[in-house]
Amino acid sequence: MNKKLIFTAALALMIGASSMAQEKLFNGINIQSPVKNADETVTFNLYAPQAQKVSVSGDFLPTVKIQTASGEYDAPGSAQLVRNEKGLWSFTTPALPSELYSYTFNVDGLNINDPANIYMNRDIATYSNIFITTKHKGDKGDLYSVNEVPHGDLAKVWYPSPTLKMNRRMTVYTPAGYDKGKAYPVLYLLHGAGGDENAWSELGRAAQIMDNLIATGKAKPMIVVMPNGNPNCQAAPGEWSFGMYTPSFMGNTGPKTPAATSMEESFMDIVKYVDSHYKTIKNREGRAVCGLSMGGGHTFNISRLYPNDFNYYGLFSAGLHLGKNINLKDPSIYNQMKADKVFQEQMKKLFNSNPKLYWIAIGNSDFLYKANADLRKFLDENHYPYEYMETDGGHIWRNWRIYLTTFAQKLFK
Amino acid sequence: MNKKLIFTAALALMIGASSMAQEKLFNGINIQSPVKNADETVTFNLYAPQAQKVSVSGDFLPTVKIQTASGEYDAPGSAQLVRNEKGLWSFTTPALPSELYSYTFNVDGLNINDPANIYMNRDIATYSNIFITTKHKGDKGDLYSVNEVPHGDLAKVWYPSPTLKMNRRMTVYTPAGYDKGKAYPVLYLLHGAGGDENAWSELGRAAQIMDNLIATGKAKPMIVVMPNGNPNCQAAPGEWSFGMYTPSFMGNTGPKTPAATSMEESFMDIVKYVDSHYKTIKNREGRAVCGLSMGGGHTFNISRLYPNDFNYYGLFSAGLHLGKNINLKDPSIYNQMKADKVFQEQMKKLFNSNPKLYWIAIGNSDFLYKANADLRKFLDENHYPYEYMETDGGHIWRNWRIYLTTFAQKLFK
Repeated sequence: MNKKLIFTAALALMIGASSMAQEKLFNGINIQSPVKNADETVTFNLYAPQAQKVSVSGDFLPTVKIQTASGEYDAPGSAQLVRNEKGLWSFTTPALPSELYSYTFNVDGLNINDPANIYMNRDIATYSNIFITTKHKGDKGDLYSVNEVPHGDLAKVWYPSPTLKMNRRMTVYTPAGYDKGKAYPVLYLLHGAGGDENAWSELGRAAQIMDNLIATGKAKPMIVVMPNGNPNCQAAPGEWSFGMYTPSFMGNTGPKTPAATSMEESFMDIVKYVDSHYKTIKNREGRAVCGLSMGGGHTFNISRLYPNDFNYYGLFSAGLHLGKNINLKDPSIYNQMKADKVFQEQMKKLFNSNPKLYWIAIGNSDFLYKANADLRKFLDENHYPYEYMETDGGHIWRNWRIYLTTFAQKLFK
Repeated sequence: MNKKLIFTAALALMIGASSMAQEKLFNGINIQSPVKNADETVTFNLYAPQAQKVSVSGDFLPTVKIQTASGEYDAPGSAQLVRNEKGLWSFTTPALPSELYSYTFNVDGLNINDPANIYMNRDIATYSNIFITTKHKGDKGDLYSVNEVPHGDLAKVWYPSPTLKMNRRMTVYTPAGYDKGKAYPVLYLLHGAGGDENAWSELGRAAQIMDNLIATGKAKPMIVVMPNGNPNCQAAPGEWSFGMYTPSFMGNTGPKTPAATSMEESFMDIVKYVDSHYKTIKNREGRAVCGLSMGGGHTFNISRLYPNDFNYYGLFSAGLHLGKNINLKDPSIYNQMKADKVFQEQMKKLFNSNPKLYWIAIGNSDFLYKANADLRKFLDENHYPYEYMETDGGHIWRNWRIYLTTFAQKLFK
């Protein structure tokens, strides 16, 4: 106890010395936000006595339809916070189902993060605060939480890509007990446009999902490899020598001259590195690949380029294109497939190899729904076996976490 | 090119669908902030047409003296931004020396982060934006940047602590080329109060500093182990099963019942794990330990508890206390040392073992300056050899990055 007392005295001074940490502690009001209430509602609080108008925008509110030149889409709804006499603004949600939620505040026209909540995720160039609600063991919120279970390690690893002629960075999850096992299967987990090697572990909660599924015996212990899908980048923004640039949807593939070689064509560089540096099952029996959006497109292409190297494929809200045989004049993927002999031969070869699982998942309001229905039509007509999962909602991380959770349980069994 | 066109069309829609990413791209003004100008000044921009008053607070501005009940301390200065007719607020600094700088905005009394800058660091419960200025190769900004050099890997690793009876998380840096070497020395790098296993790699830029020093031959390739110094926590906030709590200076040691055992007493659990899981030099010749503030205090205690296990000790702005033999009645560390026979025996044993380096560094306005001067007085009187570095400034990360840079170059040579 004595030790603690002395340290507390010293720390009172340190608080001052340590740059900007003091405001929140010393502003006279100890703001907590968000607060999870006993009735499963959630209250947001912001201390802003000079503000005129404060709202919260979050994916726990009913979505709103937004019209743009390129079509209609769903955006998170927003709600007004109400000011009390001390200048504290508050809003309480209805009871919320178990989920990981995102939100931002808007104060007099300015989007800001919640200063009382240190938990944030970056999606491309925008930070949103997050919180998780959980009702019972095994529900979504519980699956996305860090629980008292054995944890895998998560590493940022540099590997050489001879095809792309650069060193590149990826995230590698090794399951708890990895040092004791002999050889593990590997899931290659690919991000979407605007993302990077941090996306699945941050926005996707991949490490928490895998820890929890493995601990409860729902998924086999596996290595999960999350590479960077932008062939012109070595790593996430700020993590390579291009400097502290602001990412954009195309920006992550933009800061350097586009590589002549695509993600898909360089993909086996990653597999080779993983097989030579980790304890892996070094054939298709121990390999799965899946991805969201652009990463689903990568998976679609990888399945045809390397039909004998993977046994499980997962297309999550996949952005489908037929590789070099793209046809801009007809945007129908189905028509493109029917017209493309090379594609048909690749698919024949792929399904002749009897992969254990070809899995397609998409939300019913996803703007890529039609393209994926086209793919299913093609597969049906050719009697190529696949599994299909359809969820509510659109092109959102909430769905991709569900798809990872579902897909991971089907692997290596 | 065709592929890129189709993808761009799809992405225009995705931007909408993807929750809150659109505001910054579509608010009509493409805000860049901070902007590094050719004359080495830096301009901050914030689009806030409804704001009445906007300021920036940052460590590139002259510090101001703040008075509190517990004493006077330095805080970062602030400057007003000026509004133009469109509602864009701006401020330009004087020319800035090469450094890593931190800042926040204040809009009508509310502290916010710069929405145009995705680069942020969390210090305890507060996020600050960061930027780096560099003038020439090898200066501070360059050392803290990701350069086109081989990069080490950075892993979040779970290890068992039998002494603390829990699994715990640490950050481990393995240098570029680690897979090719036979045995590496290890630097144990400890954080301060309120920090965690993420502090040195995030706020301290430890991976960038080590990459750059090793690439230029200024430091030996070494493993750097950054454990969590709060014996009651398994990991950083949000990374263990205690949930998404808000950290505070004492909070990181507070969420669970205090452990009966201290960081120092459990420290060799970490060394044992590292020696059994990494290619290390498994004796004092290959071991250094250093830390900042509370971690400097840990280093001070570890040096006496295990006088034969490390060869290099670094006390950065160390918070010194004599372990269990603390004397609350006399706050003078010098008097405590002179009165404490156990301490004197420990120090004698330590320096009789001839450690290669006992290194003390502190800023001349640090509130712990006197305590460290007391320690130097004791060492001088006993003719115990040590090296000393004194810098400007106080108890701040700017100094701790300098100390790591300096200390790392002295090791294992």
